[in-house]
Amino acid sequence: MSLREQTGYRSETVRRANLSAILREVHLDQTLSRTDLVARTGLTRSGIRAVIGELVAAGLVHEERGEPQGTPGRPSPYVRPNPDGAVVLALEIAVDSLAVATVGLGGHVHDLVWVDRPRTRFSLDETLDDLLELARLVRARRPASDALVGVGVAVVGVVRRSDGLVRLAPNVGWIDAPLGQTLTDALDLDVPVSVANEADLGALAEHRRGAAVGVDHLLFISGEVGVGGGLIVDGRPLVGLAGYGGEVGHLPVNPAGAVCRCGSVGCWETEVGERKLLLLAGHPPNGGRGEVDAVLREAAGGAPEALNAIDNVGRWLGIGLAGLVNILNPQVIVLGGQFGRMLPFVSGSIRSELDRLALDASSELVDIRPAMLGVDAPLLGAAELAFERLLDDPLTWAAAAAGNTEAAGTA
Amino acid sequence: MSLREQTGYRSETVRRANLSAILREVHLDQTLSRTDLVARTGLTRSGIRAVIGELVAAGLVHEERGEPQGTPGRPSPYVRPNPDGAVVLALEIAVDSLAVATVGLGGHVHDLVWVDRPRTRFSLDETLDDLLELARLVRARRPASDALVGVGVAVVGVVRRSDGLVRLAPNVGWIDAPLGQTLTDALDLDVPVSVANEADLGALAEHRRGAAVGVDHLLFISGEVGVGGGLIVDGRPLVGLAGYGGEVGHLPVNPAGAVCRCGSVGCWETEVGERKLLLLAGHPPNGGRGEVDAVLREAAGGAPEALNAIDNVGRWLGIGLAGLVNILNPQVIVLGGQFGRMLPFVSGSIRSELDRLALDASSELVDIRPAMLGVDAPLLGAAELAFERLLDDPLTWAAAAAGNTEAAGTA
Repeated sequence: MSLREQTGYRSETVRRANLSAILREVHLDQTLSRTDLVARTGLTRSGIRAVIGELVAAGLVHEERGEPQGTPGRPSPYVRPNPDGAVVLALEIAVDSLAVATVGLGGHVHDLVWVDRPRTRFSLDETLDDLLELARLVRARRPASDALVGVGVAVVGVVRRSDGLVRLAPNVGWIDAPLGQTLTDALDLDVPVSVANEADLGALAEHRRGAAVGVDHLLFISGEVGVGGGLIVDGRPLVGLAGYGGEVGHLPVNPAGAVCRCGSVGCWETEVGERKLLLLAGHPPNGGRGEVDAVLREAAGGAPEALNAIDNVGRWLGIGLAGLVNILNPQVIVLGGQFGRMLPFVSGSIRSELDRLALDASSELVDIRPAMLGVDAPLLGAAELAFERLLDDPLTWAAAAAGNTEAAGTA
Repeated sequence: MSLREQTGYRSETVRRANLSAILREVHLDQTLSRTDLVARTGLTRSGIRAVIGELVAAGLVHEERGEPQGTPGRPSPYVRPNPDGAVVLALEIAVDSLAVATVGLGGHVHDLVWVDRPRTRFSLDETLDDLLELARLVRARRPASDALVGVGVAVVGVVRRSDGLVRLAPNVGWIDAPLGQTLTDALDLDVPVSVANEADLGALAEHRRGAAVGVDHLLFISGEVGVGGGLIVDGRPLVGLAGYGGEVGHLPVNPAGAVCRCGSVGCWETEVGERKLLLLAGHPPNGGRGEVDAVLREAAGGAPEALNAIDNVGRWLGIGLAGLVNILNPQVIVLGGQFGRMLPFVSGSIRSELDRLALDASSELVDIRPAMLGVDAPLLGAAELAFERLLDDPLTWAAAAAGNTEAAGTA
C-alpha cells in the first residue's frame, strides 16, 4: 500500500504533470513551436502559454519569436531548453576507461573528459580517486553558481537502484561495493546521486537521443569485455524489482558451454563476448578492443579464420536474440560496442538464426540497427537519469538548484 | 507522433482520470471506505465524494453506510461495485476445453460454463460453432437489457492485439486465423471483442485477483500441452509491439534439443512440456492431463521412474527460469497448470538451478508460488481485458452500455 503511487489527480498534481509534460518535450526535442506542443500534449494554447511562462520564469526554457511561414497570423513562438538553466554531472565507470561530463538541459554536453585506465587499478578506492579527480576538473570549468540538479553514474555492474550498491561487477572484481553512498559522501554536492548499470543507461540514451528515438519496444545489446543489455518496454526502461533487470548477457544458452565469470555455465556472454571472438580468431583473448578491431580488419580483408570466428559469434548472437525476440516482441534491436561494429559481417547469420528459431510473428517485425551514440551512450544515459527528478517536478527542483546556486554565490 | 499518447492533462482528462482511478480501486478491491480511497488516490474527501456521486449515478457502484467503529464521528461510507452495472462476456479457447462466462464489475462471476472437447474438432469453424453455442446459453440466462461493455477472449496462440488475428496456435493447428473479426461478426453485440494469448491473460488474472495481488514484477508460467508465459513489468502487462510478447515457452535453452511444434529446435517447451514429462515417465506422450496426474500420483507414492521424470523437468524448469530471472528481476514467479501441481516435487530442483545459474542479486529476491485461480485464470483474465475500456473511461462506456440496454429493451 505505502509503496504504491497515489492514482488520483488534484489541482497541484495536474499542474506538476503539465509542467513535466512540456519540459520533457522540450528537453528531448530541443526546439518546438507552441503549435507542436499543443499537438503533443493535448493542452490548449492558453494552457501551454501559462506553463511556458512558469518554465521561462524558472530559467529552464527560452522562448523566441518564430520565423514568418507565409501563412496569415503571427508565427507561433519557439521554445528551447536553456542548457545553463539546469545541469547534471554524469560519470561513467567502464572496464578500460573512466569518463565525466557536465550536461545541460536539452542534452547539451558542456564538457566531457575521459581517460583510459590500466586493468591494474580496479579497486573501488583507486577507481573513485581517479573518477573524482576528473569530476573536479570538469566542475572547475563551470561557474560555482551552476544550477546542478543531479548526478548520474553508469557502471559495468549489477546495481541496486535504491542506493547505488554494486552487487556484482565481475569485470572489475567488485562484490557489494557501496558506490552510491561513497560517491554521495565524496562529492558532497547536495543533490542526489543515481547509479545504474551502463547498458541500461546505454539503452536509455539510444532511446532518447540515438538510434531508437520514438521506439517504445527496444532491446539494446552492447558487447565489450562483458555483454550488457538494456530493455525499453512500452516506452519505459525495464528495471525490475530492485534494478537488476536486463542482464541478458547471463541468459543460459548452452548447457554444454563454458563457465562464465558470473559463476554460471553457458551464459550468452561466454559465446558472444570479446574473449570468445578473440579465442576463435587466434588472437590473445584478453587483448581488448584493439585486438577486436584487428579481427574486424582481417575479416574485411577476407581472412578465413577471422571470418569464421565472426560467423560463429554471429550465429550465437542470433540464437540468444531469438529467445529475446520471443519474450519481448521488440520493434528494434540496437547493437552497440563490438556488436555494432560487427553488424555488417553478422547480419545475415543473425537473420538466419532468427528465421530458424524465433516465432515468425515477432521476428518479421524486428529491425536490427547499429547504435548511434558509440562509446558515449552510457554517459549520456547517466545524464538522462540525473535529469529525471527535474523532469518529473520541474519547479520544485529548479528552485532547489537556484537555492544551491545562491548558497554557492554567498559562500 | 500520431501513435503517441498526448501527455498533458486538461480539465476533462483529469475528471476522467479520477473517475478511472476510483472505479479501478473499487473494481479490484470490492469494498472500500471513503477513507481507504483518500489514502489510495491522494484525492480530497470532497473530490472523492463528487466522483463517487457520478459513479453511483451511472449505476456502476453502490454506497452503503459504514459500521460504527467505536471512534467519534460518523463512520466512513463504504463503496462497492455494482455487479449488474456493467458486465462483460469472457470466452476461452483452450486445447481440450472451451469456456464462457459473464462477469460483472468487481469480478463477480454471474455464470460460467465449460465443456471438454475432443482433439478432432480443432478447426476454426468447429471451434466457433461450439463456442458460440455456449455463449448463447450464457447470454440467455441474463436479461436482454444487460449492460454489456465488452467481450474478452483467451486463446492458446500468438495473437495480434490490434484485431485478434491468431498468427500461430500450433496445438490446435491454426495459422493466421481471423478469430477477432469472425467473433465480432458472429456475436454481433455492438461492443468491442478483445483477443489475447491465454497465458498473458492468466498472468493478468493472477496479478489482479490471484496469487500475485500487489506484485508489480511478475512472471507467470503455465504448463499444459504447451508452455505459456505472461509477464507483468512495473505493474503493467508486457505485450510487446504487436501483442506477441511473453512467449517464454519458445526460449531456446538446448541447442542439442528436440524439434518444437513451433518449427524451432530446443525450445524450453520441448524440455518441460507435458509430452516430455510423460515420455520420461513411460506414459503415452499425448495422454493429456489425466496421464500427468497419474505421474504425479506415482511420484507421491515414491515410484522412481515418475520421480526421476519430474526431477528432470524440474531441472529444466530451473534452467529456463534462471535466464528469465536474470532478464526480468521479478518479485514473484507464479507456476500454473501442471507446473503448479508439480511444485512440491520440483521446488528444490528449481532453487538449486537458480543458485547455480542465476545472478544471486536477482535469484535471492524471487518468491516462487503456485497459481491460485487454477484453470479459470485465463477466462478471468479475459474478463479483465474486456473491462479495460470501461475502467479507463467509466462514464462514456457506462452510457454506451445503457444505450445498448435501451435499444435491447425497445427491440
